[in-house]
Amino acid sequence: MSTTVTRVRAAYDRIEAVDRPEIWIDLRPREEVEREARTIDERLAKGEQLPLAGRLFAAKGNIDVAGLPTTAGCPSYAYHPEADAPVVAGLRAAGAIVLGTTNLDQFATGLVGTRSPHGAVRNAYDPARVSGGSSSGSAVAVALGIVDLALGTDTAGSGRVPAAFNGIVGLKPTRGLVPTAGVVPACASIDCVTVFARTLPEAEQALSHMATGTAPALLGRRPGPWRIAVPAREQLGELDEGWAQAYEAAVEQLAAAGATIRELDLSPFNEAAAMLYEGAFVAERYTAVGAFVDKATAADDDSLDPTVAGIITRARDLPAHQLYADMDRLAVLRTRALAELADADALLLPTAPGHPTLAEVAADPLGANARLGRFTNSTNLFDLAAAAVPAGEVNGLPFGVMLIGPAYTDERLARIASLLQPETRLAVVGAHLTGQPLNPQLLALGARLDRTTTTAPVYRLHALRTTPPKPGLVHVGEGGAAIEAEVWRLPAQGLGRLLTALPRPMTLGSVRLADGTEVPGFLCEPSALTDAEDITSFGRWRSYLNAE
Amino acid sequence: MSTTVTRVRAAYDRIEAVDRPEIWIDLRPREEVEREARTIDERLAKGEQLPLAGRLFAAKGNIDVAGLPTTAGCPSYAYHPEADAPVVAGLRAAGAIVLGTTNLDQFATGLVGTRSPHGAVRNAYDPARVSGGSSSGSAVAVALGIVDLALGTDTAGSGRVPAAFNGIVGLKPTRGLVPTAGVVPACASIDCVTVFARTLPEAEQALSHMATGTAPALLGRRPGPWRIAVPAREQLGELDEGWAQAYEAAVEQLAAAGATIRELDLSPFNEAAAMLYEGAFVAERYTAVGAFVDKATAADDDSLDPTVAGIITRARDLPAHQLYADMDRLAVLRTRALAELADADALLLPTAPGHPTLAEVAADPLGANARLGRFTNSTNLFDLAAAAVPAGEVNGLPFGVMLIGPAYTDERLARIASLLQPETRLAVVGAHLTGQPLNPQLLALGARLDRTTTTAPVYRLHALRTTPPKPGLVHVGEGGAAIEAEVWRLPAQGLGRLLTALPRPMTLGSVRLADGTEVPGFLCEPSALTDAEDITSFGRWRSYLNAE
Repeated sequence: MSTTVTRVRAAYDRIEAVDRPEIWIDLRPREEVEREARTIDERLAKGEQLPLAGRLFAAKGNIDVAGLPTTAGCPSYAYHPEADAPVVAGLRAAGAIVLGTTNLDQFATGLVGTRSPHGAVRNAYDPARVSGGSSSGSAVAVALGIVDLALGTDTAGSGRVPAAFNGIVGLKPTRGLVPTAGVVPACASIDCVTVFARTLPEAEQALSHMATGTAPALLGRRPGPWRIAVPAREQLGELDEGWAQAYEAAVEQLAAAGATIRELDLSPFNEAAAMLYEGAFVAERYTAVGAFVDKATAADDDSLDPTVAGIITRARDLPAHQLYADMDRLAVLRTRALAELADADALLLPTAPGHPTLAEVAADPLGANARLGRFTNSTNLFDLAAAAVPAGEVNGLPFGVMLIGPAYTDERLARIASLLQPETRLAVVGAHLTGQPLNPQLLALGARLDRTTTTAPVYRLHALRTTPPKPGLVHVGEGGAAIEAEVWRLPAQGLGRLLTALPRPMTLGSVRLADGTEVPGFLCEPSALTDAEDITSFGRWRSYLNAE
Repeated sequence: MSTTVTRVRAAYDRIEAVDRPEIWIDLRPREEVEREARTIDERLAKGEQLPLAGRLFAAKGNIDVAGLPTTAGCPSYAYHPEADAPVVAGLRAAGAIVLGTTNLDQFATGLVGTRSPHGAVRNAYDPARVSGGSSSGSAVAVALGIVDLALGTDTAGSGRVPAAFNGIVGLKPTRGLVPTAGVVPACASIDCVTVFARTLPEAEQALSHMATGTAPALLGRRPGPWRIAVPAREQLGELDEGWAQAYEAAVEQLAAAGATIRELDLSPFNEAAAMLYEGAFVAERYTAVGAFVDKATAADDDSLDPTVAGIITRARDLPAHQLYADMDRLAVLRTRALAELADADALLLPTAPGHPTLAEVAADPLGANARLGRFTNSTNLFDLAAAAVPAGEVNGLPFGVMLIGPAYTDERLARIASLLQPETRLAVVGAHLTGQPLNPQLLALGARLDRTTTTAPVYRLHALRTTPPKPGLVHVGEGGAAIEAEVWRLPAQGLGRLLTALPRPMTLGSVRLADGTEVPGFLCEPSALTDAEDITSFGRWRSYLNAE
């Protein structure tokens, strides 16, 4: 049974199991995707390099996927793209498989995930709360483990707010690094394509296959500790209960990791954020789809989301002279914002000020939405880069923060964000060792080799009859030996990912090392040992393989 | 009598003589300017370096000059600037003296020079025709020899169309090279400050004192002959009688100077030109002064020019969504235009398609104006540089062409434009020789040394009792000697300038050189010889000076 086909089947099973039909606009037929998975596995078997082989992804419904209609969440707007958008094509060329298009706030106009004729997308952790939007379906599909990656778009924060609400990573690259061709524009001049993943290394790897440009590595890295800018508490405004403390904990976590913390004036960011919907910039949404919305409104088309249609229709009458004035004011604010950022490596903010319920958004569709963009709205107006990452929980729900920096600081932001992602160690003794067939799984999770050592002398090693061949490490206490092991460091979330994908008879458990410490590591089920050869005398898996 | 003071007195005399009061909005009192001139002369006498000492200039009425109101051609709009605009300050710091502020199409809105409560500015050559605008007074003040230099602004062509109509040079630098601070905006995002002069070297020298940035010298100069792009005849549209032939002659002049001529598609330029007033870009004028115009209109303020007020008022209702659409379209057109320019060093165009009379503009204020911008309107929208220069005459009136190139090709454009400016030779034997006191006059005109030779042996040399001391060269035929002479090359227009400023008893006439050729050169009036010493035996002016 091939790996990619297995993963596709598991994904479709998971889609049924989670019972969140509102995630999808168009899901590809399972058989068709399985055929594609088989092709990928065949190409891998022939030795082809496919860095994203086995990865499954979803595309937000405003991004072209050949063979599926592009609707932007409005069925009557649908068109049938001839080709994949470049971002979709980039992931597919690297071996990833797209499962379908996901629900969104119609025309990417919203941060809530409720403005869609396909229904509100419920939060992955609490179905009574919003998923966040506009990339709602994409974020929830990743959070629920259906896909590894998902494409979003971000104009006001649509690639970050749903990441925060669903406990995943959302990278908002510098404008222009990732092509927006084949994407229905929201505000064409500032739209960005974004990527969601459960871990930062996975998101970064995907982004590297979507980008046509590259941010210079660690642009302008100053020697010394990272310098993190944070606003005074009162400039953050009202936050949900417990969120200020969670934010403070993230600040402390960076400080504990060696960063220096300095205060910044958030007022230019706050003023620009308010301009995004209150000023004339929203007129760009009318430029994109206004003619369609006018016609659909006149025809009483029930494809239209009434809140979205209202926003776009009102944008028709905004005067151009106000737009020029807003652009002038924005230029002033941007200069001030960049000056505020000049003495720091990144600005740390909560991704959103709070997490409303579906009922709260229904009661005040515009007000609840506007609040969500308080920290994200200014990013693209100012031409900044951002990385949104999970940062713990509040009341059992995910809490997320953003790192924000000038254009082209994408890699710097990811490095700083990684300090907020807890790491774990993993002991491997077989197929995951450096150079062995499954080692790329570790690398893809962002793992890096910590050291080579041995287990405590309490294990026996068996050659299991698996494909590829794997050793079974068994704790025996008396009569055991020290077995060579590599200890890897990887994001804690990656461990869960390994476990989810782990085939029988392998298991993960605690492994005691030569120095007496215990770390997670690969073990196996007892039943696997029945017809397995005891190879303990070799001392290491590689010696056994060489001797065979 | 000091040089600068003399020049100031001559300028005020000239202002009276030409009787064109409509040129000026505010002229500084003669006594005040004479005092300033005296200071300049004193500073020069102390050895201070003032590269523009002796130069007089005028500033368009939308540019701040400390001590004069800035009105933008609308008396009720007037404010009293605390300081000179940086461009004015730059010229003054180099020793130039500002005489006053000049008339303009109100709020720099027009290309005709008639839209002003101060009256239509009549053309320097034919008072029945328009001066061109909006920098009308500035161009005519230079053309009539009142000032050496004048500042204009250029959004749609206001720094070039009046140059063409008045037979002078107008340089429209790359956006951002010359600061626009202290200038009443027309369309703030694309406005440029420009300079007028009678010759290209004078304009270039002035520009070097106005710019805060510098265009890289001859950016991207390809080896080989200049490559000049010209459109197919039909893409130029309807031209005034004789203008197509005059344009063709300029093309041939460049070809004769060694340039290769290639065809370019003018359609993206033509389409963008039409967008400037027909599309939403004009809304930026409302952003700049719309609130004032609305208030003045409501108050029946007769300061307002009705045509200008109408344009600005109508711009109030242009929708922002159209502006976004226009910006998108412009970006497409700009890409096409830059591709068209990629295989050439410059685009050569007539500066305007024709030269209307005052009566024609009065009969159709909007139509006549729109026609004038056909070739200039796209330049700033596309972020290009331009140099407008005289290129002969049609029916006794000046004809002008423009060289247009990508941003930062300013110097390249000037070098190509200089090929269209006829050159002359000038023989000098005394105070204008290299290193002598009046040599800087030649350098300022853009002159360069051709060779050192002698006159034919038919001259006698006298030491005149002038300040500074000058030799008088006198043709005697029999009994003459060969006198050392330098032959300089300079723009033909510069010769007229020298002549205009030539003090008695010096004259310009024909001088026969050793090789038998005759070139213009300095001679003197017979009366000057009465009490002059015959110094022919020295053979050269410098030997006499050294011997003294």
